[in-house]
Amino acid sequence: MVKSLLIKNCGQLLTMRGNGLGIIKNGFVYCEDGKVVKVGKGRAPKADRTIDAEGKVVMPGLIDCHTHAVFAGSRANEFKLRADGKSYLDILKAGGGIHSTVNATRKASKAHLLTNTLKHLKDMRSYGITTVEIKSGYGLDLETEVKILEVARVAGKKQSINVLTTFLGAHTCPKGQKPRQYLKFVMNEVLPKVEADFVDIFCEKGAFTLRQSRKFLKKAKELGFKLKIHGEQINRLGACNMAAKLGAVSCDHCDRLSRGDIKKLAQTGTVAVLLPIVPLYTGEDKYADGRALIDAGVRVAISTDFNPGSAPSKNIFLAMSLACLEMGLTVEEALRGVTVNAALALDLSDRGVFAKGKRADIVIMDTTDYREIPCFVGENLVKKVFTGGEMHPK
Amino acid sequence: MVKSLLIKNCGQLLTMRGNGLGIIKNGFVYCEDGKVVKVGKGRAPKADRTIDAEGKVVMPGLIDCHTHAVFAGSRANEFKLRADGKSYLDILKAGGGIHSTVNATRKASKAHLLTNTLKHLKDMRSYGITTVEIKSGYGLDLETEVKILEVARVAGKKQSINVLTTFLGAHTCPKGQKPRQYLKFVMNEVLPKVEADFVDIFCEKGAFTLRQSRKFLKKAKELGFKLKIHGEQINRLGACNMAAKLGAVSCDHCDRLSRGDIKKLAQTGTVAVLLPIVPLYTGEDKYADGRALIDAGVRVAISTDFNPGSAPSKNIFLAMSLACLEMGLTVEEALRGVTVNAALALDLSDRGVFAKGKRADIVIMDTTDYREIPCFVGENLVKKVFTGGEMHPK
Repeated sequence: MVKSLLIKNCGQLLTMRGNGLGIIKNGFVYCEDGKVVKVGKGRAPKADRTIDAEGKVVMPGLIDCHTHAVFAGSRANEFKLRADGKSYLDILKAGGGIHSTVNATRKASKAHLLTNTLKHLKDMRSYGITTVEIKSGYGLDLETEVKILEVARVAGKKQSINVLTTFLGAHTCPKGQKPRQYLKFVMNEVLPKVEADFVDIFCEKGAFTLRQSRKFLKKAKELGFKLKIHGEQINRLGACNMAAKLGAVSCDHCDRLSRGDIKKLAQTGTVAVLLPIVPLYTGEDKYADGRALIDAGVRVAISTDFNPGSAPSKNIFLAMSLACLEMGLTVEEALRGVTVNAALALDLSDRGVFAKGKRADIVIMDTTDYREIPCFVGENLVKKVFTGGEMHPK
Repeated sequence: MVKSLLIKNCGQLLTMRGNGLGIIKNGFVYCEDGKVVKVGKGRAPKADRTIDAEGKVVMPGLIDCHTHAVFAGSRANEFKLRADGKSYLDILKAGGGIHSTVNATRKASKAHLLTNTLKHLKDMRSYGITTVEIKSGYGLDLETEVKILEVARVAGKKQSINVLTTFLGAHTCPKGQKPRQYLKFVMNEVLPKVEADFVDIFCEKGAFTLRQSRKFLKKAKELGFKLKIHGEQINRLGACNMAAKLGAVSCDHCDRLSRGDIKKLAQTGTVAVLLPIVPLYTGEDKYADGRALIDAGVRVAISTDFNPGSAPSKNIFLAMSLACLEMGLTVEEALRGVTVNAALALDLSDRGVFAKGKRADIVIMDTTDYREIPCFVGENLVKKVFTGGEMHPK
């Protein structure tokens, strides 16, 4: 890696400072030792490596703050069954649903999971993603949950995207067990043994109740974990409201919040992570009201929710487009949703913006107009990606 | 270019023969002089160049049969205004809408338009597209319409994607003119002078009436042109029904067909070209009933409708995903929609399938399971593209 890096001739340098995009026209970003040192316009410091952005948009590396990227198997058979007109019940009968991923992931070796995960991370980098959060939750037993988190950590070290981990052992109840008993096991036997940046739970009909979720998150908090929640995806159980009160860093999905819930998120400063590919893919067609959230003062992040069952796509550009088209976000809000606000959703203050001391995670986009990024529906506009100052081809 | 090419070890070779995908497992495709010579499994002929597909899906090059890829300017400002909550009227007042593209395209030099178009074609090839149809219609005067068609033809010769052209001078009425008078001008002054594979008209409220459209297409037919129509996108005027009766090769959009319209398309063998990115982008949320069309025996093609105003995306993978998710197509039907049926929509019999004598337009996909192609929503799965036997990187 070169010691110093200068990216010059940035037609629109999106610093993400302030409340908008903090655009510097014809700006530069100068980095040393993997950190941003100077952002500005006019005369720039000399560097070991100088990259001419040719007037294009340059912005902080994208942050995908909600994925389930460590798993085995594929659920493309379920997509086919659904397209063939089969019902959800038919699909379950054919062995589909989350438990098929759980079975495949339990059986998979660490080496196999690592190979899969590294492939996904490579794809993600091609979309300009330089930081990603990965959840466990396809093990639903001690051994596999630990294995998934370990694979995520190892994968994070083996390539250039920074990986954060979330323990989601409470993703759903394993087959043949009762939610209450399983959750007791997770709390007492698994939670004290896992290493993860966050703890998360799926509070939903068919998964865990509000009461169970509260008890679980309280325990996680006692153990020193930072909290997240999967809430209000299909039904409103009060999950996000509860998690916000407990000081959760983020509430994820948020498709069916009440006004009171939204107010609570605004009060507590909890980030709402919106996942627009999910309603498109599942056919739910009920999208989170991003506009109402932002208007109420909630900070909103956008993510792919990449997973094999309900969002088999790493296309964060599509997520941005859908956030504007279906969730009422402005172009600027969508761009902040995958940078500065996604960093907040991961409790990270060292990235997502261009300022002195921040990580030199940078994307050069193949456009001179930032508005085209979500406008060109689902098109990957990445030209070059830098992680900690190191350059990668698309 | 090498004389002979062998692609071996094709885990799933989608020949598109018969009514499904005509899959050959572990197959090969052998080509000479840019044409397919042999498709099969087992012992393959020796070739000058052999490519190992490594067990992946190999299929005919994708055909995007409905685009407006020659234009100047950008309409990303309109996307921003809309996301900002501005009304359609506000956008028109701000100089938006089709006439902004018309103005920019009229002013643009041939060289500028050619540069733009070549960039789009390069992007398209990265999506595995090897044949594309391009319409005029952003000139609305003799000079510019002729210029657009010429640029499309020249662009087709300057790179490897095969380009077909459609004259859409009757895209809308130019500002300050009356539709009847403008159409008379197009029929008498422009139509006899243009060179194009097809003639098309936009039959819609605010564009041209059913009666005007019929008269126009009849005239085009007399002049020996093959016909297409933009019909039933926003309102049902009977456009597709009328065009089918006149022997149109395809009816495009088809979002609001009656049962009788569908029956007519089935009777006449007219291809229905469905454009699912448009309702997503425009927020119309009324998708063509692909299922009903196919069940009635209509041959259905899928296309991006790439254009700056209502579908600024070349992502044909997203179009396939949406065709399954929103239009009721099966996985197999979506794949046929961008190959064999897209060829039919362009009246081409030499591509879209793998058989002796067909063009060696081939895509190797980065998956071993064809179901993942539309399942991985909006993800570009192309690994390698061949046009007439010539290999290109993604």
